[in-house]
Amino acid sequence: MFAISLGDDQAELRPLEPWQAEEFLAHMDRARELVDPWIPFAGYATDLASARALLQRYADKQAADTGRLYGIWLDGGLVGGVLFQTFDAASGNCEIGVWLEPAAQGRGLITRAAERLIDWAVYERGMHRVEWDASPGNTRSIAVAKRLGMTRDGVLRQSYLYRGERHDSEIWSLLAPEWRARRA
Amino acid sequence: MFAISLGDDQAELRPLEPWQAEEFLAHMDRARELVDPWIPFAGYATDLASARALLQRYADKQAADTGRLYGIWLDGGLVGGVLFQTFDAASGNCEIGVWLEPAAQGRGLITRAAERLIDWAVYERGMHRVEWDASPGNTRSIAVAKRLGMTRDGVLRQSYLYRGERHDSEIWSLLAPEWRARRA
Amino acid sequence: MFAISLGDDQAELRPLEPWQAEEFLAHMDRARELVDPWIPFAGYATDLASARALLQRYADKQAADTGRLYGIWLDGGLVGGVLFQTFDAASGNCEIGVWLEPAAQGRGLITRAAERLIDWAVYERGMHRVEWDASPGNTRSIAVAKRLGMTRDGVLRQSYLYRGERHDSEIWSLLAPEWRARRA
Amino acid sequence: MFAISLGDDQAELRPLEPWQAEEFLAHMDRARELVDPWIPFAGYATDLASARALLQRYADKQAADTGRLYGIWLDGGLVGGVLFQTFDAASGNCEIGVWLEPAAQGRGLITRAAERLIDWAVYERGMHRVEWDASPGNTRSIAVAKRLGMTRDGVLRQSYLYRGERHDSEIWSLLAPEWRARRA
Amino acid sequence: MFAISLGDDQAELRPLEPWQAEEFLAHMDRARELVDPWIPFAGYATDLASARALLQRYADKQAADTGRLYGIWLDGGLVGGVLFQTFDAASGNCEIGVWLEPAAQGRGLITRAAERLIDWAVYERGMHRVEWDASPGNTRSIAVAKRLGMTRDGVLRQSYLYRGERHDSEIWSLLAPEWRARRA
Amino acid sequence: MFAISLGDDQAELRPLEPWQAEEFLAHMDRARELVDPWIPFAGYATDLASARALLQRYADKQAADTGRLYGIWLDGGLVGGVLFQTFDAASGNCEIGVWLEPAAQGRGLITRAAERLIDWAVYERGMHRVEWDASPGNTRSIAVAKRLGMTRDGVLRQSYLYRGERHDSEIWSLLAPEWRARRA
Repeated sequence: MFAISLGDDQAELRPLEPWQAEEFLAHMDRARELVDPWIPFAGYATDLASARALLQRYADKQAADTGRLYGIWLDGGLVGGVLFQTFDAASGNCEIGVWLEPAAQGRGLITRAAERLIDWAVYERGMHRVEWDASPGNTRSIAVAKRLGMTRDGVLRQSYLYRGERHDSEIWSLLAPEWRARRA
Repeated sequence: MFAISLGDDQAELRPLEPWQAEEFLAHMDRARELVDPWIPFAGYATDLASARALLQRYADKQAADTGRLYGIWLDGGLVGGVLFQTFDAASGNCEIGVWLEPAAQGRGLITRAAERLIDWAVYERGMHRVEWDASPGNTRSIAVAKRLGMTRDGVLRQSYLYRGERHDSEIWSLLAPEWRARRA
Repeated sequence: MFAISLGDDQAELRPLEPWQAEEFLAHMDRARELVDPWIPFAGYATDLASARALLQRYADKQAADTGRLYGIWLDGGLVGGVLFQTFDAASGNCEIGVWLEPAAQGRGLITRAAERLIDWAVYERGMHRVEWDASPGNTRSIAVAKRLGMTRDGVLRQSYLYRGERHDSEIWSLLAPEWRARRA
Repeated sequence: MFAISLGDDQAELRPLEPWQAEEFLAHMDRARELVDPWIPFAGYATDLASARALLQRYADKQAADTGRLYGIWLDGGLVGGVLFQTFDAASGNCEIGVWLEPAAQGRGLITRAAERLIDWAVYERGMHRVEWDASPGNTRSIAVAKRLGMTRDGVLRQSYLYRGERHDSEIWSLLAPEWRARRA
Repeated sequence: MFAISLGDDQAELRPLEPWQAEEFLAHMDRARELVDPWIPFAGYATDLASARALLQRYADKQAADTGRLYGIWLDGGLVGGVLFQTFDAASGNCEIGVWLEPAAQGRGLITRAAERLIDWAVYERGMHRVEWDASPGNTRSIAVAKRLGMTRDGVLRQSYLYRGERHDSEIWSLLAPEWRARRA
Repeated sequence: MFAISLGDDQAELRPLEPWQAEEFLAHMDRARELVDPWIPFAGYATDLASARALLQRYADKQAADTGRLYGIWLDGGLVGGVLFQTFDAASGNCEIGVWLEPAAQGRGLITRAAERLIDWAVYERGMHRVEWDASPGNTRSIAVAKRLGMTRDGVLRQSYLYRGERHDSEIWSLLAPEWRARRA
């Protein structure tokens, strides 16, 4: 029902729910190769049942106010998404993640969608710290973090296991006062 | 985050969730006298805990795709709402309910909001039958049902218990082909 | 353990529980062709696991006081049943359903069994409204509703989905004062 | 709805369910002094909430086929009960318990009700072993066990804690072949 | 992490948890022939999933303080175990069970491990009655019960069903004062 | 039952479970002033019910293999503890936390207990990364991290909310190869 315009190119941010599992799976199949190494959950949606289960997990998180997931549509097709992997209203901390299929890259969709989430987190929910985790080799993700004005807090050494190999995780963050100054 | 404009008067339809329980309760306190006899759930939200519980119940229904609840904001204040009391995607049947506080009446907000829900139910979710239950004495509610093009299916005799007395319930309905013809 | 005689022909009403799933399934197999179009749950009991699941669902409803299911035995064989599909003691509303296999029809078993349930609902539990839903084409069911003194409240248009087609549902009801007058 | 006559004196065995909690509590208050030392669960039903909780626990056991509880009515009043404290259909073992308020003693109600339960357990459910636990000082209970043809399997030393003191428990049992021989 | 020496032969008592399911299954496969007729749960651990499920059931019991299970290691290999099948701190009653694979028998491991459990139950947890159930034909088990100073409370006739045949169960018990006198 | 000696001074590491809630609360009352600013969970155990709830939460985590908590006893008294706040066997990541009451400080108990946990995590469970979170102002905690050979991965800015104020969190880590080299 709801949709937020992400700019002049008809891109839109919308809820993405379990009943849309088929559309989500078809998109994941297009996005998998690109997304897989960076976004751990991509590997969990490999058929209709697992795609629905992943969306259900986030529907449950939304009901509990501990996470949320939204899709990005371009020209009527689902091309990516943004999510609060964690959302802890009591402590004021949350973590944002993003993904996009190859055909939709290069337009700044991720940055625009992330800005919407951060606006909502900071201005409507009063969150204090927005975290962004990125693999050191994921240059696109790190570029977005920088574009959003984030600071690199550190590197969790060998904390992420992917296909049997361990990878570092960069932790970037943005504090509410920083975001407000930026948006002023 | 999301909002749908309901027309030129800045009225908006938005998600209404447990974290908004205080705002919901303040609104309910303004709406209670008017809403109470007609909308059974109004009586369940009488303090912060019960208001949060009612919103949580609908947040859980949304996660299960068995119901949804949205608020109507006017000039930045919550003035009413619309809801899917039931939503059964498998059978294609759902029931819509509405409420409004006195100060916001007379603008057609309910009709406009209900149209959005019906559009979504019929066009995006493929629902076949939208039901509307009204007390025979609730002339405003029945006027909306008529305005939406609904048909009165019958009267459930003495089926609704309110403050120790039994009241009839009128069942109105709208079928998907009727709605499509109307919107054509 | 318990049994109620339904008349001179040795017909009996008894509890029907999950441990009787084999007997229930064998009966359903005899009754299916006749029952299936009218009683939605018949389609759910097609093998031993689903037959047990259906009986378990009603055993759980009985424990929660939200529904009940009983079998009708004739000459020692299970030939049909009656059930409270819904039972809401707080509001005083309940819905009764019935089914019978072909060989047991024409003896008034359904009417006799339904009378027992209504007696219990009205006199022992203080229920106010007993509802009976019937497909307009199910002339036997409608004849029973009339025989029980019920009134047709209306027709829910196209509300029942069966094998891909939509059917109307007639809502019949009986109020406690009507039943008491009838039994006086 | 259901009732089994226990003999010429109008005594009846009937289901006893959570909605009958008030009647059960009033009876327990009459029976408590007598029942309390021998039947552990009597102490759990001391007000309406705990009485309902105890009946709900047995309603849930019945739904799971792991226990059952019935009341004994005399002259229209609840005067006692019989129960399957445990019922394990897979192993063929169950345990029967009984209680009665003082005014109803001396008529053999317990024996007659227990016979009904054993008949059902052995003949309808195929149970093999029916157990009866009694405090060595509970001479009435032991007399019933003997009257039912049970054998004393042993004495669990100091296994039952009542008001801070430890008591022995006699284990009596009846096997299906013994019951069949007796009833032949 | 934890381990208790059971004596000079390097035998040790340690926690045995779901993550050790493979080691447990391999041991069960060596122990099954001997254990199966006497210990009902041995039959539940026949592959990795069921072995893990059995250990998980006891991990959950430990979290609820209603049971516990430990392994016995000899020369670095899992050779048997001891368990609290039931543990009821409120009533002060618990039941101990044991098992051992053939190669580890004849060393008194079971007796030594059971002593540890009884010490903990009596001295640290204040339990009053420790029960030991044994098949009359399980002479080794009965010998251990005697060695621990237990008393035979009785024989539950035909209470244990194994491969379609019924067997008696001997109930042995030890009371806290008896244990304290023995250990004094 | 179990206990591990932490050295010559009779200090011991033992399970700490819900049934020990009274002992835990008395200790927490001695430790609170010192522990509170650094260990978020200390604030959750302020009376017997909350102390038991905290221990139960960790008992449940242990059953699920997602966390564990142990106590440190000195001269027979509970003086502190170590815990796996998180434990993810699939990814090989876990986080260790510690606390101690004032009277037990200065003996290296924390370091000795943490070494035991790390040994178990690395050698018995195959964990790869052990994390240690410390407030920058908690010099004792940081000293232990250094003593264990940990590396500072970064500082999560303003991520920890304590009494209405935000504090940074230092993330220290130890990798399995580093631990093995150190212990070699």
